[in-house]
Amino acid sequence: MLVPGKTSGRAGIADVARLAGVSIGTASKALNDRGQLREETRARVQAAAEQLGFIPSSVATSLLTGRTFTVGLIMTDHHGRFSLPVLHGAEDALGWAETLAFVCDTRDDPIREQHYVRSLLGRRVDGIIVAGRRAEARPPLITRAPVPVVYAFARSADEGDCSVVTDEEGGAVLAIEHLVRTGRRRIAHVTGPHGHASAIARVAGVSRALRAAGLEPVGDPWYGGWSEVWGRFAAAALTREHPDVDAVFCGSDTIARGVADGLRESGRRVPEDVALVGVDNWAPIAEECRPPLTSVDLNLREVGRQAGRLLLQAIENGHTPGVHSVDCQLVVRSSSAPASGRT
Amino acid sequence: MLVPGKTSGRAGIADVARLAGVSIGTASKALNDRGQLREETRARVQAAAEQLGFIPSSVATSLLTGRTFTVGLIMTDHHGRFSLPVLHGAEDALGWAETLAFVCDTRDDPIREQHYVRSLLGRRVDGIIVAGRRAEARPPLITRAPVPVVYAFARSADEGDCSVVTDEEGGAVLAIEHLVRTGRRRIAHVTGPHGHASAIARVAGVSRALRAAGLEPVGDPWYGGWSEVWGRFAAAALTREHPDVDAVFCGSDTIARGVADGLRESGRRVPEDVALVGVDNWAPIAEECRPPLTSVDLNLREVGRQAGRLLLQAIENGHTPGVHSVDCQLVVRSSSAPASGRT
Repeated sequence: MLVPGKTSGRAGIADVARLAGVSIGTASKALNDRGQLREETRARVQAAAEQLGFIPSSVATSLLTGRTFTVGLIMTDHHGRFSLPVLHGAEDALGWAETLAFVCDTRDDPIREQHYVRSLLGRRVDGIIVAGRRAEARPPLITRAPVPVVYAFARSADEGDCSVVTDEEGGAVLAIEHLVRTGRRRIAHVTGPHGHASAIARVAGVSRALRAAGLEPVGDPWYGGWSEVWGRFAAAALTREHPDVDAVFCGSDTIARGVADGLRESGRRVPEDVALVGVDNWAPIAEECRPPLTSVDLNLREVGRQAGRLLLQAIENGHTPGVHSVDCQLVVRSSSAPASGRT
Repeated sequence: MLVPGKTSGRAGIADVARLAGVSIGTASKALNDRGQLREETRARVQAAAEQLGFIPSSVATSLLTGRTFTVGLIMTDHHGRFSLPVLHGAEDALGWAETLAFVCDTRDDPIREQHYVRSLLGRRVDGIIVAGRRAEARPPLITRAPVPVVYAFARSADEGDCSVVTDEEGGAVLAIEHLVRTGRRRIAHVTGPHGHASAIARVAGVSRALRAAGLEPVGDPWYGGWSEVWGRFAAAALTREHPDVDAVFCGSDTIARGVADGLRESGRRVPEDVALVGVDNWAPIAEECRPPLTSVDLNLREVGRQAGRLLLQAIENGHTPGVHSVDCQLVVRSSSAPASGRT
C-alpha cells in the first residue's frame, strides 16, 4: 500500500525503512500503528521518519480507509462577501476532521459548475459544500453527485437535499425589537428590489415585529436597489413624506449608508433624530458609516460551520435532508443609540 | 492500480468490468488507453463506463504519473479583498492544467500556516501558492516544502524564492501622469501609514512622475491611516493650507472616498475644482464614491494568473527564483474628468 516517492528530494517510506534497517512492510506497519511489532522496532522506525522529515501520505491513507479526507467547496461570489465567511466556518468544522477543501468558483456559469463537480468527483472528494451568494433557493447541482452535498446560505430548491440557511426574517425581528426597546415608534423600512427573496423575508419580519409591538409601519416598505444611491434618494423622500419618522431599518448596510448620508444632508441627526439599522454587518461599510452603523449579522461563519459539520455527519452516517436555520445576531454601534429622554 | 469503490453507489471499475464482461485489468487498460486490446473490447468497456456514469479516479491517475494535479493555496485575508482576485487568477491558470486548489486560510497565525503546509504536503500537492494581503515582503514558509512554492502579491523575503508582485510604484506613476495629462498642476498625495511598504512605493512613484512633469508636489506626502476618516480630515487640512490644490492622488480608495466627502463638505467640487484618484479599484467603494472614483487597479487577478503559470512551470521543469512584476491599470471614472478649459 505504498505510493512511489517523487524525485523532488522528499523522503519516502523506502528511505525511512532503509535508515531504520527494516523492510518497507515493517516500516509501513510501524508508521500506521498496525500489525505485531516489537516496541523497539516501532520506535526505531518512528525515529527514522522523524529524522528524515517523512510526511505520511494521505493518498496511502485514503486507499486504506476508502476516504480521501477532502471535500469540494463550490462558490460563486466575486467579492467574497458572502462566500468567504462560509468558507472560514467550513474550515473551522473540517479542521477537526483533518479534512481539506478544494475551492472552486463557478462565476455563476452552469458549465463551469458542471465541470467542477466532475473534477471534484474525479478526485474522489468525500462530499461537496455549495455556497451561494444570495438567500434565493438554487437548483440542485446539475451533475448528480454520488457523495453527500450540503447547500450553504442559498438552499437547494429540492427538499430532499440538505441546506443550511440564515434566518433572515428573524434578523429583521431583532432589528425592530431593538429599535422599539430603545424608544423608537415611527419606524420605516427601506430595502432592495421587490420580489428578491431577502427583501421578502425581511419585510415579513418587520411586519411581524411591528404588529407584536402594536405599531403601524411608516408607509409601505420602500423597495429599490441594494445601493447607497437608493438609500440617499429614499432618505430624502421619506423625511419629506413622513417628517415624524424616528427610525429606519434598511435591508442592507449599503442602503443604510446612503440613508445616513441622505438624512444628514436633509438636516436630520443620526441617531439623535433618526436611528438607523442595516443588515450584513459588513465591516468596510458599517464601520465607515457616519455614524458607525448598527447592523444585523447574518452569521454566515456559523452557516459554514454547520454546513461543514452536517457534511462530515453525512459522510460518516448518511445524508439528512432538510433545511437547517441559523439565527442572526445584532451588532450594536452608535447609529441606533437611544435619543435622550426616549428610554 | 485500482482504487476500491466506495459504498455510496458510485460505479467502480469493477462494475464497469462486470457490465462489459471483461476482467478488471482489461477494463483498466481500456479506460487508460494502455496495453494491447481489440478495438471492439475497448469500445465495449467505454460504452459500459458511459452507461454507468463511471468517473475515472484521479487518485489512480496520480499513482500512475506521480502527480496529484492538486496545489495548495494558502491565504490570510479575512475580507478577501486581496486574496480572492489572486485565487480567481490562479484558478484561470490551473484550469488549463486540470489542476484543483486546496484553499487554506491561515488567519495570520504562523501555527495554522505550519499546520496547513504539513497537511498539504501530506496530500502530496504538486506545489503551493502563498497569497499575501499586503505588499510587504513576508518570511518564507516555516516548514521547508519539498515541492515548488510561488508567493503572490506579498513577495518572499528570501531572494531564492519565486514571487509575483504588482508594480505599485508604476501604478502611482500612471495616476500622476493621468492627472497631468488632464490639466492638473497642483497635485497633493494623501496616503496610509508612514513606513508601510505600499505607501513607500506609491510616494516614490508620485515623486518620480511629478519630477518628470516638472511639477512641485503640494506639500509633503500626507501620511495617515487607510481609512475614510483620515481622508476627510486630510481634505479639510489640505484645502485650508493649500487653497490652490487642484488634484489629490490617494493611497487607497477608502482614503479617496473620505477625501471626496471632505472636499464636498469644504465647498470644493469634484472633479470641477479638484480631481481625485484612488488605488485598489475596489468596486463597492470606487463605484459608490460621490462622484464615482478613478482608481489604480493592482491587477491582482493577473498576479494570480502568473503565479499559477509559474507554479505549473516549476512543477514541470523546476523552480525559477526571482521577483516577477505585473503592471497596474488605471480605471477612469468621473472623479478625474478634466475641468473645462484645462486640457
